[in-house]
Amino acid sequence: MTDPGSGAPAVSGGITLAQATAVADGTLAAGASKGFAPLTVVVVDTGAHLVVAKRADGAGWLRVQVAEAKAAGALAMGWPAREHQARAQRLPQFFAALTVLAGGRFLPVAGGVPIRDAAGHLLGAVGVSGDTSERDEEAAVAGIEAAGLVPWLEG
Amino acid sequence: MTDPGSGAPAVSGGITLAQATAVADGTLAAGASKGFAPLTVVVVDTGAHLVVAKRADGAGWLRVQVAEAKAAGALAMGWPAREHQARAQRLPQFFAALTVLAGGRFLPVAGGVPIRDAAGHLLGAVGVSGDTSERDEEAAVAGIEAAGLVPWLEG
Amino acid sequence: MTDPGSGAPAVSGGITLAQATAVADGTLAAGASKGFAPLTVVVVDTGAHLVVAKRADGAGWLRVQVAEAKAAGALAMGWPAREHQARAQRLPQFFAALTVLAGGRFLPVAGGVPIRDAAGHLLGAVGVSGDTSERDEEAAVAGIEAAGLVPWLEG
Amino acid sequence: MTDPGSGAPAVSGGITLAQATAVADGTLAAGASKGFAPLTVVVVDTGAHLVVAKRADGAGWLRVQVAEAKAAGALAMGWPAREHQARAQRLPQFFAALTVLAGGRFLPVAGGVPIRDAAGHLLGAVGVSGDTSERDEEAAVAGIEAAGLVPWLEG
Repeated sequence: MTDPGSGAPAVSGGITLAQATAVADGTLAAGASKGFAPLTVVVVDTGAHLVVAKRADGAGWLRVQVAEAKAAGALAMGWPAREHQARAQRLPQFFAALTVLAGGRFLPVAGGVPIRDAAGHLLGAVGVSGDTSERDEEAAVAGIEAAGLVPWLEG
Repeated sequence: MTDPGSGAPAVSGGITLAQATAVADGTLAAGASKGFAPLTVVVVDTGAHLVVAKRADGAGWLRVQVAEAKAAGALAMGWPAREHQARAQRLPQFFAALTVLAGGRFLPVAGGVPIRDAAGHLLGAVGVSGDTSERDEEAAVAGIEAAGLVPWLEG
Repeated sequence: MTDPGSGAPAVSGGITLAQATAVADGTLAAGASKGFAPLTVVVVDTGAHLVVAKRADGAGWLRVQVAEAKAAGALAMGWPAREHQARAQRLPQFFAALTVLAGGRFLPVAGGVPIRDAAGHLLGAVGVSGDTSERDEEAAVAGIEAAGLVPWLEG
Repeated sequence: MTDPGSGAPAVSGGITLAQATAVADGTLAAGASKGFAPLTVVVVDTGAHLVVAKRADGAGWLRVQVAEAKAAGALAMGWPAREHQARAQRLPQFFAALTVLAGGRFLPVAGGVPIRDAAGHLLGAVGVSGDTSERDEEAAVAGIEAAGLVPWLEG
């Protein structure tokens, strides 16, 4: 059985729970301070598996799945966040098919942002849902930076 | 769109994000202080929809789904936690079918506990996975109590 | 767009394609030299996503899914391979439910083995299907060792 | 059980593992020599079942499914590769429905190419994902030809 006392976890997917919690809390705090609608935030590891999720009071029941699909989708193709969105606008049918193919874990709109450390290593991604997709992305970026990490937005 | 400035959320499923966060953090703290294996905790509202999830470093990729299935399953039939487990042992085939019927969001083993407030109102449920199911339940109960809420275990 | 000329990949899930290919080829070579039935081998990264798959001539159409479910399942709970199997024998109903919960990507029988490097870091897992589950595991272990890596079998 | 010593495999779907491996390796080598983004390649037999898959370092987690959907889709209707794409452009709603109908295993964009032998017999198909769909197809064709086989592109 996994030894909980060991310093090195048996399974590692990049981002730690402490880092993911800081990203999620930073995202919700940014949304609250900017007066955005209630946000839902999901942070996933490099394998697109959920590490932390928080759904604000007043957010609808589907918001976690939306935020998770943004986060998982942000890692699906190996692109930075804005490349993702630009391609989806040029190739809408292809991207609609990808959502089916991914079993719904793929939503190529703003609000899903890959997370890197200062050295450029990929740690995971954050997905945000609740306000306009531009505001969702603004909150996601603020959350990543509040945790001392780096959003992967372009090239 | 939801008015973020209003005091009353547009959608209410019982437990608040603040309460659910307290339950989740209390569960993980209890597991760490008792030396349990790395735990994953999911708190759902009365509609069995995720409000908070946290997966400890070193926990495998399926743990969030396991914890969520314990939490959602704990509310599926309207029974307290231990009634659930007792019935599953008497009627294993029926409960195996329920897991299929629920699309996997039903796991009738210890570690899923309905949450009530002091007045007895149902607020949601917590599901825990990572150590033995008995220890998972112990951490769940500790988390609920750390948040000033009441686990619905029997009758 | 991803820069193919950069030394550091944009997305990393532990095992490299070169390592995964060595594990897969070593597994099939071990099976052939031992006179096993035609094997199918799948190597996944730490996120349980496929990196390499090879299905031998004569293997049925479902073998890739079986091998992938063994590999992904080997990482699902954070346990070494034999702990996994031992628990499944003690708790058959719980583990049957986990297969449903995982959408089929979970098969707790011998033949799925987590892969670590010499320093103990998890890199991914290999799953093998085609002969008895004991022989499948034997080939999996031979493949991991042929690649200079370490099978995580116990504690 | 299958007799591993017999020369004739119990199950035949056209392409052999040796041929499929040559196609996959040829595809990745072509992509690397041309400076394409990291590619993922899947080779399927005439039953559209996976024989070989390889995902390059740095490719996102969904790439295997995308490449497999291109390969499986290339065989779905009995058309050569470019007929497929041309029809999808004329009938986008019909092809969107086909993707749903196929459970996602159908993606009618360039990069999925049926494979034939020199005598014109269908052996399977290859699907490639990672760069633009035109470059994906270019690498697929190069991989098929590197294996001494024939891409079925037109008529």
